[in-house]
Amino acid sequence: MATLTDTPYLIAPQPSLPRLTRAVTGTDQTGASVDLRVVEERPLTIYLNSREIVTAMTIGDYPTYLALGFLRNQGMLSATDVVTAVDYDEELEVVVVRTKVETNHEAKLQKKTRTSGCAVGTVFGDMMEGLENLELPQTPLKTSDLYALAATISRTPSLYLEAGAIHGTVLCQGNTPLVYMEDVGRHNAVDKIAGWMFAEGISPDDKILYTTGRLTSEMVIKTALMGIPTLVSRSGFTAWGVEIATQVGLTLIGRMKGQRFTCLAGDHRLIRDADPAAVPDEPRKQSRKAAE
Amino acid sequence: MATLTDTPYLIAPQPSLPRLTRAVTGTDQTGASVDLRVVEERPLTIYLNSREIVTAMTIGDYPTYLALGFLRNQGMLSATDVVTAVDYDEELEVVVVRTKVETNHEAKLQKKTRTSGCAVGTVFGDMMEGLENLELPQTPLKTSDLYALAATISRTPSLYLEAGAIHGTVLCQGNTPLVYMEDVGRHNAVDKIAGWMFAEGISPDDKILYTTGRLTSEMVIKTALMGIPTLVSRSGFTAWGVEIATQVGLTLIGRMKGQRFTCLAGDHRLIRDADPAAVPDEPRKQSRKAAE
Repeated sequence: MATLTDTPYLIAPQPSLPRLTRAVTGTDQTGASVDLRVVEERPLTIYLNSREIVTAMTIGDYPTYLALGFLRNQGMLSATDVVTAVDYDEELEVVVVRTKVETNHEAKLQKKTRTSGCAVGTVFGDMMEGLENLELPQTPLKTSDLYALAATISRTPSLYLEAGAIHGTVLCQGNTPLVYMEDVGRHNAVDKIAGWMFAEGISPDDKILYTTGRLTSEMVIKTALMGIPTLVSRSGFTAWGVEIATQVGLTLIGRMKGQRFTCLAGDHRLIRDADPAAVPDEPRKQSRKAAE
Repeated sequence: MATLTDTPYLIAPQPSLPRLTRAVTGTDQTGASVDLRVVEERPLTIYLNSREIVTAMTIGDYPTYLALGFLRNQGMLSATDVVTAVDYDEELEVVVVRTKVETNHEAKLQKKTRTSGCAVGTVFGDMMEGLENLELPQTPLKTSDLYALAATISRTPSLYLEAGAIHGTVLCQGNTPLVYMEDVGRHNAVDKIAGWMFAEGISPDDKILYTTGRLTSEMVIKTALMGIPTLVSRSGFTAWGVEIATQVGLTLIGRMKGQRFTCLAGDHRLIRDADPAAVPDEPRKQSRKAAE
């Protein structure tokens, strides 16, 4: 288990890691040459035991967490499955997750749902299944914590600030961000967090998930199935996302920038103990480069 | 074939269409109630002949174009395939595309690639295939046209301006936007344009694709395979997106906002006939609500 460093993070972004970005030269509107740092994308093929499941396009950090979280969030790994090994081959760009008992996920591979999280999305199996009986803990949420988290996260050096065109998702507790994952695919970022939680045996009951991405149905369902009762985003939301959050008792907060936010569901769990007027607007730099 | 109206568009957004948005009530940071218009998401299941291919989460406009474009962009429909019928059942939320000769796409269903366009992405078949031999027409691109397009598009009433949390993609020619599609999934928006082009037999040689989404490898590959030589985005880009654009001779322009833009590939095709200093910065409203 990682230990606390001088930052509050157990895992923080590594914007200076050479393999995550590439120097690219372009030209601007005047024809002048411009040098940029651009985020990498590389394939990662995930195997569950002997079966190839998917190839993900990812920035390539934390491949084992991504594999575990992907399988967990797709229902191919249950909380009770015993993982005997997670082998990563950097050269082959492959992760193999091995379980004690071979899980039956063939059925899940049949059903394909193209979700609205921007790309052609595939949900192996029915993500809606299990939502009916789901009861999220009604953990209270202080607005003072919300503002503290947003302030800390926005000041954290990240690929998002360094190169843009990338999504960030942060697992938080109270006023403390714990694990800050970034990826070209926002679902990769969430899955890397799910993989870390699965590997470390972290309880979701008192956690808050903060994301730069939109609150689509898919993102709300994924958060709910992870058991996390609070989902916060800098960005917007869809009608179905709001409807599902209400249905499962998830507190959903969107368009959180500076002192502004909108609570779409679970307002009864909000404790407004902060004075919004006292919250400074976020630096322009932070709001400019969001991955769209 | 649609005809020109008083707007330049053959197809323009319909932000006032009731079924595309829903009224949602939330609370703001002060606890005050806020009423919002939020975009809808609904499932659309696409069949090719007797075979169920995918269920897409979409705002639900132009289901037949979405189905045709999805199948076309996934290589399940070739330019030479004869489509005998496209049947849409609104109640069942199903589109069935029928072809004269049943196409062999089973193989393509095998390979899954999770792309970086935000969600769990699946590319049926290898999107890279066909890129080697691809030669895009070296159509020149005037910066005066680029600025004219951005100005017209940013002033066009849209769901993007009305409700946010949605992506827009516009097929353009010269200084004229022709078809402006929006969707919760940015790839749906591109596929709806591909479906329209396929149905109407539109040549891509002199077209420009403008998108609000990031220029990931997937988006660049899709544009190139559509045969469109120019891709423009308000947003950022990934290293592989830039590399592929260079490889296939696609002119790639990112971070286009106001007078600013960055040309990442194909600069030699740019004709800088406009004075950037004369271009007004875009209204704050436009830049605020991008789907992230």
